[in-house]
This record gives sequence, structure tokens and C-alpha cells, in this order.
Amino acid sequence: MKVNNEHYHTIWVDPADQSTVKIIDQRKLPFDFIIEELHSTEDVYIAIRDMHLRGAPLIGAAGAFGIYLATFHYRDPGEDHDYFREKADYLISSRPTAVNLSVCVERSMQAISQTDDIENKKDIALRTALEIVGEEINNCQRIGEFGVSLIEAISKKKKGEAVNILTHCNAGWLACIDYGTATAPIYFAHDKGVNVHVWVDETRPRNQGARLTAWELKQHGVPYSVITDNEGGLLMQQGMVDMVIVGSDRTTRTGDVANKIGTYLKALAAYDNNIPFYVALPSSSIDWNISDGHKEIPIEQRDTNEVRFVEGFNGNTPGSVRITPVNAPVVNHAFDVTPARLVTGLITEKGICKASESSLLELFPEKKKE
Amino acid sequence: MKVNNEHYHTIWVDPADQSTVKIIDQRKLPFDFIIEELHSTEDVYIAIRDMHLRGAPLIGAAGAFGIYLATFHYRDPGEDHDYFREKADYLISSRPTAVNLSVCVERSMQAISQTDDIENKKDIALRTALEIVGEEINNCQRIGEFGVSLIEAISKKKKGEAVNILTHCNAGWLACIDYGTATAPIYFAHDKGVNVHVWVDETRPRNQGARLTAWELKQHGVPYSVITDNEGGLLMQQGMVDMVIVGSDRTTRTGDVANKIGTYLKALAAYDNNIPFYVALPSSSIDWNISDGHKEIPIEQRDTNEVRFVEGFNGNTPGSVRITPVNAPVVNHAFDVTPARLVTGLITEKGICKASESSLLELFPEKKKE
Repeated sequence: MKVNNEHYHTIWVDPADQSTVKIIDQRKLPFDFIIEELHSTEDVYIAIRDMHLRGAPLIGAAGAFGIYLATFHYRDPGEDHDYFREKADYLISSRPTAVNLSVCVERSMQAISQTDDIENKKDIALRTALEIVGEEINNCQRIGEFGVSLIEAISKKKKGEAVNILTHCNAGWLACIDYGTATAPIYFAHDKGVNVHVWVDETRPRNQGARLTAWELKQHGVPYSVITDNEGGLLMQQGMVDMVIVGSDRTTRTGDVANKIGTYLKALAAYDNNIPFYVALPSSSIDWNISDGHKEIPIEQRDTNEVRFVEGFNGNTPGSVRITPVNAPVVNHAFDVTPARLVTGLITEKGICKASESSLLELFPEKKKE
Repeated sequence: MKVNNEHYHTIWVDPADQSTVKIIDQRKLPFDFIIEELHSTEDVYIAIRDMHLRGAPLIGAAGAFGIYLATFHYRDPGEDHDYFREKADYLISSRPTAVNLSVCVERSMQAISQTDDIENKKDIALRTALEIVGEEINNCQRIGEFGVSLIEAISKKKKGEAVNILTHCNAGWLACIDYGTATAPIYFAHDKGVNVHVWVDETRPRNQGARLTAWELKQHGVPYSVITDNEGGLLMQQGMVDMVIVGSDRTTRTGDVANKIGTYLKALAAYDNNIPFYVALPSSSIDWNISDGHKEIPIEQRDTNEVRFVEGFNGNTPGSVRITPVNAPVVNHAFDVTPARLVTGLITEKGICKASESSLLELFPEKKKE
């Protein structure tokens, strides 16, 4: 997507130096747009762990690039060690809960195992990483193409008046490689000249909405407004929201959706006000092994200081302020689960379906149980 | 309530100097506990306008003290002016939407009009202000007495295990004179030895939960945890919330409740999880003239910088950080309306009733229409 009118992906190989992978350091957004160079598996590990980049599809791709960069620093570690296996395990441990990471790293490992020649491994690892990048871009593109029809239908009904779309957290291109999941239909609509406006939930505690989604939309020229996480219910009551689109961290085969904490509250409000609530997701985030989101999806608890302190900028200086009493007791879950009954539909790369097992299986018949 | 183990109200006359009214400067909490002296009507005006104090009952009492302080500075303004009328109008203009303010100021004006003697006016104005203080304390006390039975019933059912109560914003003693509205049943339960724990919504954008409610509860020794506004839904899904108690800024005669933005989302989640959702309110905040909260309660929009910036402390230094792109478009409503159908009950100074016109009129038969 566009940044200062140039087109960017979230991760790419430096054309001038094939041993350097470049990323956008998302910790600095929306205040600074900083390109970071990654030269080694260790650099990739730190970038994932410390959230220089985030978002399941992007983390997966980064993992594959981590194996690619390992090929530049190969040395025989001796008899009892396996150089690449150790690099792979190390990468996967950077964020153990993100399933895309292990899937992509293992896919690269499988691919490079075809040859013993290190230069061949290098070529294969690069090809695999770029394949993953291509697939992720393609997934988001398809989600955009399918999803835009929903926005166009509302636009037509409103006779061209702005379609107000609420989103939560960042399921944008910054979480993917390009287009994003929840944002893809929005970008496609905007680029087709459909009049859209996005309500951006700030998304406490990490404020990915206020920091990342707002920045993305602004860069691409999509009209938006930042709102507190408390505001969306009222806007729906007032008829100021035409649809909700969010992403998903994990979706069950029955259509329960784990997503950023607070998503469930917006789904309830949308349901109460008869507003369509869509989840945009590549099928790679569907966990076909589970059927009950509440019982089977583990909910990560994160650092309690994310709640006690708010990070931002003071003029041009990064800083944080404490908003609670010192060492106030805090509970901080990263996700909640929106039950399928509150979801109007799932927008996938294979099409739009209801949030139910039978509807999902119509799009993905290969996932039928025997 | 207790602060550093001493008992405080939110407003009082200095026993050593009857011409000084003292308040807690709430802008500094929870970081500093600062007592501010008010010497004149002008001081009261600024304290209300700039939110050194807030909360409808407290603002009302402060207004009455504003008239009282005016009696110390009386001078004949000449033929075409009415000294006290001008002071009264000035006070009321500090926050024009708070109905308690005008009600209490006019009550004091009515009272002092009984005499022309300035020393008599002084005595009457003080008596009126202290009457209002007494009534507000009494209202909250009664709300506490009625409400505690609900908590005790849950405690009994849970065999003494902690009763987890979620609250939003600050409807605590800092918003009143003592006890608070939503917090009164909680303080009463705690003081009776009932095992309670409070989930405190941080309440963006002004963070009254994280700053004020957390501080109040901590000072009084009530176990609590601060959570983001996004967290409550998940906690309810997980069975970690036994009841919700919030306050109200305005309640219709049919039981629709305007309260701090985000309250509606918690009411939806409580309803979806079969968790009782109570609103604690003195009857002075019931607007008997209106029946439809959505159509008839005007929703205040506030400064958009409340969303762009988060205020807090950096060590011991007050500060704020920007969390959005520069000048990001923002919408910032202060309240939303929870429809009566989502409210389990209203806890008033006259007892607990359903959120319906007929139930309210059983407690307040004098409000029946002819």
C-alpha cells in the first residue's frame, strides 16, 4: 500500500543487497516511518519477539525469511548439531503461539532439505519466502475482491453517501504483506471510488487502531476517525455505522472467532442494532481441529504494564505515562472469542460464507471429516 | 471515605476558617492527594469548569457553597445589578448541562431571599449547602444499604468466595460527597466483611476508572483490578463477573440510563451472559419529564484531544502522550444510553426496582402523571 505516495510491502529483500531483508519498524508508527534492515536469523527473531512487526501472516513470512538469512551465515556446527534445525527452533520460539510462524518456518525447512548444497538452499529458501509473500498478498487481494461487493451494495442503498465501516485493532496491510484482511475490502472500495469512512477503535491496551490502522488509512487517503473502544456502541445506536469488519487470530471450523480483546463487545452491539458484522480472514487462520471457541481457544495473558502505562509520543519524543495507581492490580487478556451466532459472515479468499461449519465446508470441501 | 486512614468528604468548610471551603483536587489523583482551598464564587466556578471536582451530586453541592462564599464578599453593585443573581448565573454557566448545579444554586438563592441581612444570608446559605451535603450523603447511604443485600445474596450463593463486581467510570464517593452511588453497595459489603473484588474499567478517554475509582477502592482497602474497557466481555464469558453496578447521569421515567460512554457495551455483555446489571442512582438524577432515552437525552461531545492524547504521570511529573497521527480526525461522545430492557434493576435511595415506569412509580408515587 502507499506510504508517502510510494508503494510498500511490509517485508522485502533489498534489491541492492540480497543478503538484507527490510521491514517497517511498526513500533515507531505513526510517529516515524523507519525501515529496518535484518541481516541474520537473530535479527528476525528479535523483530518478531519485540514486535517490530506483528500480525500472523507477516510473522509467518518473516519466519521464512529468517531461514533464508540463515543460509548466508552457514557454518558446520559439528557432529551433534543441526545448523538449520537450531535456527528453525530458535525462530519458532520467538512467539510460540502464532501458528503461521511454525507453519512457514517448517515449510522452508522442508524445502531446503531437498539439497545439501548451501547455494541451492539459499535459492530455495528465498523462493519459498517469496512464495509465501505471494500467497499472502493473493489471499488478501481475494478477500478484498469478495468483500468489496458488500460495501458496494451498502453504498448503492445509501445512494453514494459515505459507507461507515467500524474496525477494531489492526487487521490491515501492516499485519499482512499488502492490503490487509479487514482493510482489504475497504481499500478496494476506496480505490474504486466508493465513498467510505472508517471508524477506527483505538484498541487498548496497545492502541494498534490509533497507531497503525489510522496511519495506514491516512497514508492511503481513506477517510477515517479514531474513536475510543467505548464509543462504537453509541455510534451504532445513532445509525452511524453501516457495517463492521474485523480480522481474526483464530477461527474454529464452526465459525467462532478469536480476535483482539474487545471484538466481542462490538459484535454484541452490531447484533443489537441489526448491523452486519463481518470477519475477514485467510483460511490459514482457521483451526479445523476445534469446534468450540470458548472451550478450545487458549487466551493469551500479556504484560500488565500494557494497561498501567500508555505509550505514545510527547512531541517527537517517544514516551509513556502511567494512568493507574502505582502497581495497581491488573488483568490483561489479548483476545476474546466472538461466538458464531453474532457473526454475519466470513470473508475468505475463497468467498463469503456464513459463520457455520456447513457453510465453511462448502468453500473448503477438502476439510470435511471422514 | 478513608484516605490514608483518615475519613474525608469531597467538600467541606474549614473548621478553622468558616470563609474557606475545601475540596480534593481530583485532577491530581491518583498521583497526588491535594486539598484545594476555595475562597470565592470565582474559585468555585473554576473548580467546576476545569473539573477539579466532578460528578453531578458533588457539582450541585459545590454550587451551593459558591453562593455561600459570595456572602463573604458582598458589595452593593448599584441599582441595575443584582449581586447574588449575577453570582448564581455565573456559577450555573460553569457546566451548563449538569442539572444538579442549577437545582442546588437556585435552592440556595431561594433560601437566602428570605432575608435582606447579609449575615443572615450567610447563615442560611451555609445551612442550605450543608443540607444538600447531608441529603447527598444520606442518598448514597440508603443506596448502599439497599444494594448490599444484592451482593450478600451472591456471596451466600458462592459460599463466601469473592463476589466479582464490574464497574465503569467513577460513580464513587469522589463523584458524590461520601460512599458514592455505584460504589456504596460495594463499600457497605466490604465493611460488613463480605468478600468482594471489583473489576475497574479504565474508562477511556478520561480514565476516571483507572485514576479515580482505583484510587478510592485502594484507599478504602477494597480489592480491585484495573482492566481496559475491552476486557469486561471476556471476563463475563469466563464467569469472572458476578454482577455489574454502574452510576447514571440521567435516567428516564421509563428506566433508560444515560451514563459514561461504553456503559451500553457492558450492559449488552452482561445480558448475553446472564449477569445482573444494576444502576445505582439517587432519584435526583431521574428526569421524570422524558420517556425515551435515545431520542430525548442529548449526548455531549467533548474535546477531541481527550482521545488523541492520554494524560497521566511520568514518574512524579504530570504529562501526556499522543497516541494517534497528528490531528487525526476524532469523534468523542461523553455518554451513551443503555435501554431499560438491558437493566436488571435500579438501586435508589427508596429501594430497588425494575427499570420500568411502573416499578419506578411504586417507589416514587408522587411522580405519577395526572
